[in-house]
Amino acid sequence: MELNVYLSGEIHTDWRQQLKDGCEAHKLPIVFTSAVTDHQASDSAGDLLGAEDDNFWRDHKSAKVNAIRTKTLIENCDVAVVRFGDKYKQWNAAFDAGFCAALGTPYITLHNEDIIHPLKEVDASAMAWAKTPEQVVEILKYVLTKE
Amino acid sequence: MELNVYLSGEIHTDWRQQLKDGCEAHKLPIVFTSAVTDHQASDSAGDLLGAEDDNFWRDHKSAKVNAIRTKTLIENCDVAVVRFGDKYKQWNAAFDAGFCAALGTPYITLHNEDIIHPLKEVDASAMAWAKTPEQVVEILKYVLTKE
Amino acid sequence: MELNVYLSGEIHTDWRQQLKDGCEAHKLPIVFTSAVTDHQASDSAGDLLGAEDDNFWRDHKSAKVNAIRTKTLIENCDVAVVRFGDKYKQWNAAFDAGFCAALGTPYITLHNEDIIHPLKEVDASAMAWAKTPEQVVEILKYVLTKE
Amino acid sequence: MELNVYLSGEIHTDWRQQLKDGCEAHKLPIVFTSAVTDHQASDSAGDLLGAEDDNFWRDHKSAKVNAIRTKTLIENCDVAVVRFGDKYKQWNAAFDAGFCAALGTPYITLHNEDIIHPLKEVDASAMAWAKTPEQVVEILKYVLTKE
Amino acid sequence: MELNVYLSGEIHTDWRQQLKDGCEAHKLPIVFTSAVTDHQASDSAGDLLGAEDDNFWRDHKSAKVNAIRTKTLIENCDVAVVRFGDKYKQWNAAFDAGFCAALGTPYITLHNEDIIHPLKEVDASAMAWAKTPEQVVEILKYVLTKE
Amino acid sequence: MELNVYLSGEIHTDWRQQLKDGCEAHKLPIVFTSAVTDHQASDSAGDLLGAEDDNFWRDHKSAKVNAIRTKTLIENCDVAVVRFGDKYKQWNAAFDAGFCAALGTPYITLHNEDIIHPLKEVDASAMAWAKTPEQVVEILKYVLTKE
Amino acid sequence: MELNVYLSGEIHTDWRQQLKDGCEAHKLPIVFTSAVTDHQASDSAGDLLGAEDDNFWRDHKSAKVNAIRTKTLIENCDVAVVRFGDKYKQWNAAFDAGFCAALGTPYITLHNEDIIHPLKEVDASAMAWAKTPEQVVEILKYVLTKE
Amino acid sequence: MELNVYLSGEIHTDWRQQLKDGCEAHKLPIVFTSAVTDHQASDSAGDLLGAEDDNFWRDHKSAKVNAIRTKTLIENCDVAVVRFGDKYKQWNAAFDAGFCAALGTPYITLHNEDIIHPLKEVDASAMAWAKTPEQVVEILKYVLTKE
Repeated sequence: MELNVYLSGEIHTDWRQQLKDGCEAHKLPIVFTSAVTDHQASDSAGDLLGAEDDNFWRDHKSAKVNAIRTKTLIENCDVAVVRFGDKYKQWNAAFDAGFCAALGTPYITLHNEDIIHPLKEVDASAMAWAKTPEQVVEILKYVLTKE
Repeated sequence: MELNVYLSGEIHTDWRQQLKDGCEAHKLPIVFTSAVTDHQASDSAGDLLGAEDDNFWRDHKSAKVNAIRTKTLIENCDVAVVRFGDKYKQWNAAFDAGFCAALGTPYITLHNEDIIHPLKEVDASAMAWAKTPEQVVEILKYVLTKE
Repeated sequence: MELNVYLSGEIHTDWRQQLKDGCEAHKLPIVFTSAVTDHQASDSAGDLLGAEDDNFWRDHKSAKVNAIRTKTLIENCDVAVVRFGDKYKQWNAAFDAGFCAALGTPYITLHNEDIIHPLKEVDASAMAWAKTPEQVVEILKYVLTKE
Repeated sequence: MELNVYLSGEIHTDWRQQLKDGCEAHKLPIVFTSAVTDHQASDSAGDLLGAEDDNFWRDHKSAKVNAIRTKTLIENCDVAVVRFGDKYKQWNAAFDAGFCAALGTPYITLHNEDIIHPLKEVDASAMAWAKTPEQVVEILKYVLTKE
Repeated sequence: MELNVYLSGEIHTDWRQQLKDGCEAHKLPIVFTSAVTDHQASDSAGDLLGAEDDNFWRDHKSAKVNAIRTKTLIENCDVAVVRFGDKYKQWNAAFDAGFCAALGTPYITLHNEDIIHPLKEVDASAMAWAKTPEQVVEILKYVLTKE
Repeated sequence: MELNVYLSGEIHTDWRQQLKDGCEAHKLPIVFTSAVTDHQASDSAGDLLGAEDDNFWRDHKSAKVNAIRTKTLIENCDVAVVRFGDKYKQWNAAFDAGFCAALGTPYITLHNEDIIHPLKEVDASAMAWAKTPEQVVEILKYVLTKE
Repeated sequence: MELNVYLSGEIHTDWRQQLKDGCEAHKLPIVFTSAVTDHQASDSAGDLLGAEDDNFWRDHKSAKVNAIRTKTLIENCDVAVVRFGDKYKQWNAAFDAGFCAALGTPYITLHNEDIIHPLKEVDASAMAWAKTPEQVVEILKYVLTKE
Repeated sequence: MELNVYLSGEIHTDWRQQLKDGCEAHKLPIVFTSAVTDHQASDSAGDLLGAEDDNFWRDHKSAKVNAIRTKTLIENCDVAVVRFGDKYKQWNAAFDAGFCAALGTPYITLHNEDIIHPLKEVDASAMAWAKTPEQVVEILKYVLTKE
């Protein structure tokens, strides 16, 4: 058993790296994928097709170019980890969770206790709620290596 | 042509009522559906099955009971309107949008200009972005009555 | 909003009737459906096509005839209620729950506390666990009438 | 032709090992997968995310963590073998069978004659009923090697 | 519960009428549908779009026009009855059965004992095998009226 | 049997009206649906949400608003009629045909002989090719009324 | 581009071998699969699970065991070739064609001119009709090697 | 991450080669697929099965043989690039775009500014509009290599 794990959400802390390092330490057979996490590159993805004056359309174009990547990766993943940090709106993370829920793709949420209430619908469709990247590593290790 | 329209998101302003009133004024053949919007009733939906000490599980239970309703309604709707206000996290609205996107159900977002950037992924999969309930009424009127 | 509710499981107590009576008392707009609950008729459903000497094939034939009904009803329902009593194996109830889970159809389990552990996988995919028919009535009433 | 075979059900006898040994003896190109069969590890899978006081929620958490694994494996398998022994409720086995039936995944049941009647709905959707692991080996050998 | 029943196969005997009469006698709530059973009209359906010199293309055109009807009706039916008589090839009946099998639509075969062997694959995916229209009536009556 | 028929393509001749009149003359039980065929209204559908300076985005916005209608109607239709006239590019008609093909929705093409060659891929997935609205009426009459 | 090609139908002539030889001569990158074509082995496949007195159930058991193989192979193939010879009923071939049609899997029929008429529904959903194995080889060669 | 990219549309310029060369220069891990682009070979694909007198049926036969290839390739691709040039009708390109839209497969359109208006429905469902092959290369490079 191998897993393809999509990492969604917060891009301002190093949780992705912690998660990958933890899994690597256990040599877990996981392929990790993710949206482009370079904030500026992501915001200007659409500029490759020509500049836009209007902010809405600039965002629109970039978001669609990014979706070529994220849609493909989410549809191909076995499990997603969706991270909510303590800053920003992070509606794209909740959007990804809803997308997974509709596809029937299991996902794990990763967030602190103080946002349990606003995340209750997102958690209700999740297969697990973890508070730390280490816990996610433990879950993935259990899923992949226990017999 | 008739439409079944699901109204998702913000429950602290009267946008749902404005929208319904506007559509009624034009006698548009629309059935509107929605999650339970009585905040307290929604939060305590799970209590009907017994009280919980732990906040996470209380929220979990209530969110799942509510999902019996919302999942059924979203899967049956022709179009969703997803409203993002200026308060609260509203992750459930973004979750619903992601759910619609995966199902291929068209949705219209309804929000102000100041949150264009954090909503870019949600807007990128939407069929339209409206700034006011009146605009949504205009769109639905066009869709339903123009020949 | 109306609901089509499939009632699965135990046929030796009157929980179906209690549930229907409770919903009727609240005039809830629900269509209830169910497998044939007349035990003897159900077991001999296949005899209509000719008798069988072999027990396995007699059961097989009857189970398939019954499945014409149950498969159609389960695929058409909005919500299922799956009841586990304290007697018999009731593997068909668990089978129906698995079928619903794969279809993405929400279901509510109805059972006592003493069988929580063996039902943990079935409950894990359920939207709610009720201990009494009255609780199911409360949930359905909430889902259908709260605004 | 290779097969991915999921082994569901009873974890208190060595039927999985017998089946694997038998297939290996014939060098059949099969990848076998399974839920975690270490009973205690499986029951405490959710504890990795923090302990729970309430039995229901402890089971719930563990069952969901296990489902990350089983859902992925069942959806990826070509054939499932579902084993019912003479002890315990084994509702999870029947649940898996129902899940396979809804997905259209062929499955083989493995059980003694004395439980034909309560398993009639589960057998009715199965592609074969075997009484011994050796018979399952024979079936898989036929499916994979006959021309 | 009402049923939409598609009648496929043999058009040279009056089994359809017997079946309808039998169901009507019991006032069963069934809508029956069928391909066009007027042999000559069916063969010349494509001629409405212009004559063809080549037999293959004449048949092709007519078969496709007929498929507009049959595909729609089969996809909308709850149950199909597939009749094999003792004359002609009746490959279209077997084709319809395969179509139903892939869609997961339950079907009942109706044929004599002497063609059990060549129909074994078709019967293997059927929910029931009946020898007479009366038996089909009995099955439908059981499915629709027993409680 | 009733049919829901979507009319796609050319908006500069009165073929839709001819088709409806012909079907009405035979009292065929058909509900006809269509995109908005008022050219100017269709092109400016997005203006209801605010004007755009850039032609691409104006078209984009309008096309998406129109898609709320067309996507819903095409997904709900039983049969589509796709008309190609002798003017304009009519890529939207070919787009609708491809959409129907992927959904498995039967469609009839309506065009003159002189464009057989460039339409060969579109015709190859069609159930029928008609040269005149009268022929489409004949086909629909046959499908709906012949027994 | 590689193709997985399922060969369905007639087992009494060597068309499968001719087809494979022809493709091998052109070194086409094709994996061929097929039902078990050893007639006696196929008929007795179910005997591995115990003998049956009744002919219907013996056939039933064998057909289901065979379906474990054929269902998996057909669902995994890119293209099917369905052969109708001049003997036997070959309802299983027509069944496979209907199964492919419902799945949207392209198939090529292979049969003589004298059975065009009874095969018109089967041919109407096919992507090509070939009269000889050589023609099928030519089609596959074209599909795989032309640029 | 690797991508399977289907190239649809115009066959009279060397845009496919430019695109491939550009991607190769960046060593992007892409498998490109396409319909047969040899115009004459494509038009005569059906002749391999016997000549036709009637132009419609000749085109029909060839288009279906080509569809064996294109349908398989489009259904397997991750992303499609759909090119509209300044000559010919190119309805097959719009057909492919509609097919992708219904499947939920992301596609990029490639065309000049002067045909924005007639392509508005096709562009509305696209994830990006590029004016040059170089821009498509840039997008694919971004999607595949940015982190």
